[in-house]
Amino acid sequence: MMDGSMQPFRLTLDKFLDHGAKWHARSEVVTAGANGAVQRLTYSQLRDRAKRVSTLLKKRSVRFGDRVATLAWNTSAHVEAWYGIMGMGAVCHTLNPRLAPADIAAMLLQSQARILIVSADLVALAFAVAEDAPEVTSILVIDGDVPSEQDGSRLRIEALEACLAEADGAGPEWGAFDETAPSGLCFTSGTTGAPKGVTYTHRSSYLHTLRLLQADVFAIGCKDSVLAVVPMFHANAWGLPFATPAVGAKLVLPGRRTDGESLARLINSEAVTIAVGVPTVWLGLLEHLEAVGGDVPSLQRILVGGAPLPPALMERLESRLGVIIQTSWGMTELSPSGTVAHPDGGQRQAAFAGKPAIGVDLLLTDEQGVTLPEQRNVEGHLHVRGAAVVERYFGQDEPATDADGWFATGDLARIDDDGNLIITGRAKDLIKSGGEWINPAEIEAIIGALPSVSLAAVIGRADIKWGERPLLLVELRREETVCDDELLGALKGRIPSWWMPDRVVRLEAMPTAPTGKIDKLQLRKIYGNA
Amino acid sequence: MMDGSMQPFRLTLDKFLDHGAKWHARSEVVTAGANGAVQRLTYSQLRDRAKRVSTLLKKRSVRFGDRVATLAWNTSAHVEAWYGIMGMGAVCHTLNPRLAPADIAAMLLQSQARILIVSADLVALAFAVAEDAPEVTSILVIDGDVPSEQDGSRLRIEALEACLAEADGAGPEWGAFDETAPSGLCFTSGTTGAPKGVTYTHRSSYLHTLRLLQADVFAIGCKDSVLAVVPMFHANAWGLPFATPAVGAKLVLPGRRTDGESLARLINSEAVTIAVGVPTVWLGLLEHLEAVGGDVPSLQRILVGGAPLPPALMERLESRLGVIIQTSWGMTELSPSGTVAHPDGGQRQAAFAGKPAIGVDLLLTDEQGVTLPEQRNVEGHLHVRGAAVVERYFGQDEPATDADGWFATGDLARIDDDGNLIITGRAKDLIKSGGEWINPAEIEAIIGALPSVSLAAVIGRADIKWGERPLLLVELRREETVCDDELLGALKGRIPSWWMPDRVVRLEAMPTAPTGKIDKLQLRKIYGNA
Repeated sequence: MMDGSMQPFRLTLDKFLDHGAKWHARSEVVTAGANGAVQRLTYSQLRDRAKRVSTLLKKRSVRFGDRVATLAWNTSAHVEAWYGIMGMGAVCHTLNPRLAPADIAAMLLQSQARILIVSADLVALAFAVAEDAPEVTSILVIDGDVPSEQDGSRLRIEALEACLAEADGAGPEWGAFDETAPSGLCFTSGTTGAPKGVTYTHRSSYLHTLRLLQADVFAIGCKDSVLAVVPMFHANAWGLPFATPAVGAKLVLPGRRTDGESLARLINSEAVTIAVGVPTVWLGLLEHLEAVGGDVPSLQRILVGGAPLPPALMERLESRLGVIIQTSWGMTELSPSGTVAHPDGGQRQAAFAGKPAIGVDLLLTDEQGVTLPEQRNVEGHLHVRGAAVVERYFGQDEPATDADGWFATGDLARIDDDGNLIITGRAKDLIKSGGEWINPAEIEAIIGALPSVSLAAVIGRADIKWGERPLLLVELRREETVCDDELLGALKGRIPSWWMPDRVVRLEAMPTAPTGKIDKLQLRKIYGNA
Repeated sequence: MMDGSMQPFRLTLDKFLDHGAKWHARSEVVTAGANGAVQRLTYSQLRDRAKRVSTLLKKRSVRFGDRVATLAWNTSAHVEAWYGIMGMGAVCHTLNPRLAPADIAAMLLQSQARILIVSADLVALAFAVAEDAPEVTSILVIDGDVPSEQDGSRLRIEALEACLAEADGAGPEWGAFDETAPSGLCFTSGTTGAPKGVTYTHRSSYLHTLRLLQADVFAIGCKDSVLAVVPMFHANAWGLPFATPAVGAKLVLPGRRTDGESLARLINSEAVTIAVGVPTVWLGLLEHLEAVGGDVPSLQRILVGGAPLPPALMERLESRLGVIIQTSWGMTELSPSGTVAHPDGGQRQAAFAGKPAIGVDLLLTDEQGVTLPEQRNVEGHLHVRGAAVVERYFGQDEPATDADGWFATGDLARIDDDGNLIITGRAKDLIKSGGEWINPAEIEAIIGALPSVSLAAVIGRADIKWGERPLLLVELRREETVCDDELLGALKGRIPSWWMPDRVVRLEAMPTAPTGKIDKLQLRKIYGNA
């Protein structure tokens, strides 16, 4: 005791909203509704409402560590649910409404959530899910009315808003638990394997948020207006509902509508300075603005991640919108941010994912997980370590890390002399042809850079002689035509000749997962057999 | 265990240097020497050397929790000592060479450090100190040669550099302890009372550093060159030796010379973008540049703290140097940063100290410590709470906080509608005259704003009739003259008439404490009696 001490201070997520409400009481959370209508709440109002969500959940016997699920779009009511659940020490299990009901139910069977908080327009889905998830007994509807016909269901269905009215009085204290308590549960997208649950803790998401706030990372400040297009059901919406109240930035939520026209309207009405989402969303914005001759003068930066950004799209976005594109790399298992390109837009390429900030460390290994002797300018299997990286998946006994604590990402990568990360492919996407590896990502990068091409994917197609042979699938830009020879000609001399795809398939619309990534599982199912 | 988990990650300070060395290996720490010479080390080189300091200390039987003291200027060798000491889990006790030997010895008696790491030009002081500090047995000299005559002292005196040569081989592992382990010890400046030791922990300084890195706070990034004029013996040098390697910024250290000419040369040769120090230092820079007609084009921001900034000086600095001045408020007890004005230089006044960032909370109370019902636009006694705020002073049994965990700063303050903190005075500086309080800070602010005035101080002078009466002391700007009536005339109508100082004293040079604050203890000693 003679040593002296500093004050105890638990790193719990409720502190972000408390801080925003107290020190940036007038900063707003804005939610887009139908026909350009918006709903506005101050952080102070939002905090009061989130407190009442906690009170309600306590009345409904939710206790510390219990999972409470959400099936909802990006709206302030969803943010209130997050803080209401997490603040009291329950675990917010975010569900992706774009998945099949049976897949969602399988996740609920694992998390055993009894209460589902559901957007009004997703109630039918929630009912379908609940049929296979018997633990679910209660549905609380947000952002709309409770449907009148209820099919004599065993489920209790109510409007959350109506219940809040009775949730007065003393609720549970926020943050009255250890900072390592779990706060969230999110399953991986499953584009390369079975979905696995990642349990975020208050501490891990708190430290992740502080990383985002750094001047070299997301650099979000009190004067920013931040549009979170990245869904709240996907890896904490990249931590934006934590980062914005932490500094008093305006948080702008698009609700269900993320088409180009809706986003352009919202960006202009809310003077958005930073917009965050997957590449396809920004393609939609760009095409809308090009079609109508519109502009987004307030927008300074677009943070892109979740899927590779075609260089041509990056260039078009920067030149047409006058913004800086910040590329990034992350995963559900990383909370989700791993690396982010510098916000000042210096030395940049679409393939660059930036450098790790303090709290993230990277390692390249060979196929067997042995550290490569040289860590720069060679391709290796990417491993990651840090305060916001998964150690063990939900419900699993075995750690997801190796003996030294490294998590194998499944990505292939290079790191240049300056420490910039370049993701070169997914280990699981590699094609084995005649006993040698072909990296689809390299072919996709070249084809994706062609001005006529919107999206490109290369998958392995079963082949009797070679085991697998590469197949190129392309979605062309509107009104563009290009023959196969032209497409494949772009590859000549830039890839080994035996990497040349045997066939080209044109798609009206590339199948994408709800996260915006090209759904290679789907492509392989349809086109992978000889 | 079914819950899943995120990776363990201890918030220990060695991680900052490890990160800088690995991911910003070419970023430099630059130390100014004599005649414009500079010494350059990369973070990678500095880390190797700091590791060897740890190895040496281990050989000298320094163990976890032991205090090792430094008595040194801002140099890379001092930074190496910091990381060498803290990395292995020992506690770095920074001593202020501008204090009297007996005062320094009194601090060493408390910390019981056996080893002193000393700048070559402070060895004589170290010997004088050691006479009253019998625990000290060893002096390791940095930044110069060991003096040849040693007076047959009981002290072992060696050049640290020479010892490092033998300190090869496996040293102690860095960061292999709990993150709440103590990392540093620094005594308060004692301008208002007896110096008290504040024990920083790895966790508290780590979280303090992450706060500084926020885009709304110090906003230090990898492209910055940061001049740390604030001494390393004063409250962690505001955390700059932690913040710079954490993001790979260049760290520029002035050594002993902090005169205007030396600083201007260093700023220009190292393309400094951010400079950090107390107001008097920047007055020196300004006067030098004005005298020689020089300029500092790379400099973007000056972070000022440690003492009130006269509004006239702020305006001169901004207009003459073309920089943004970031005012701030802090204390040794706060690690030391409390609040910082926004880096974009928007809505600003010299008196504004900015808003608290996440991790710092403020409260205003009355004299008895009772929370004021209204927290905005009223003056109160300022309390603070947070992850990097003292809980209990070194060697004391009683906490320094109240029952709710608030630390009473001794400052008087107002908070405006936007949440900006304005320090209005020191509670201990208040003058009681005829049973009523006079706040010297308000008078000082008005007088300090006069163009002819460089520094102003108001103290209470013993008075038989009134108890105390205010006395105004001024240091005028070079070549300025102004009569008493003119000075006092500026106060008319702006303060209660009975606050009017009875007398004006002109000083050639205002006495300042080593921290740059006006030394009111000294002024009271000389001028406080009737």
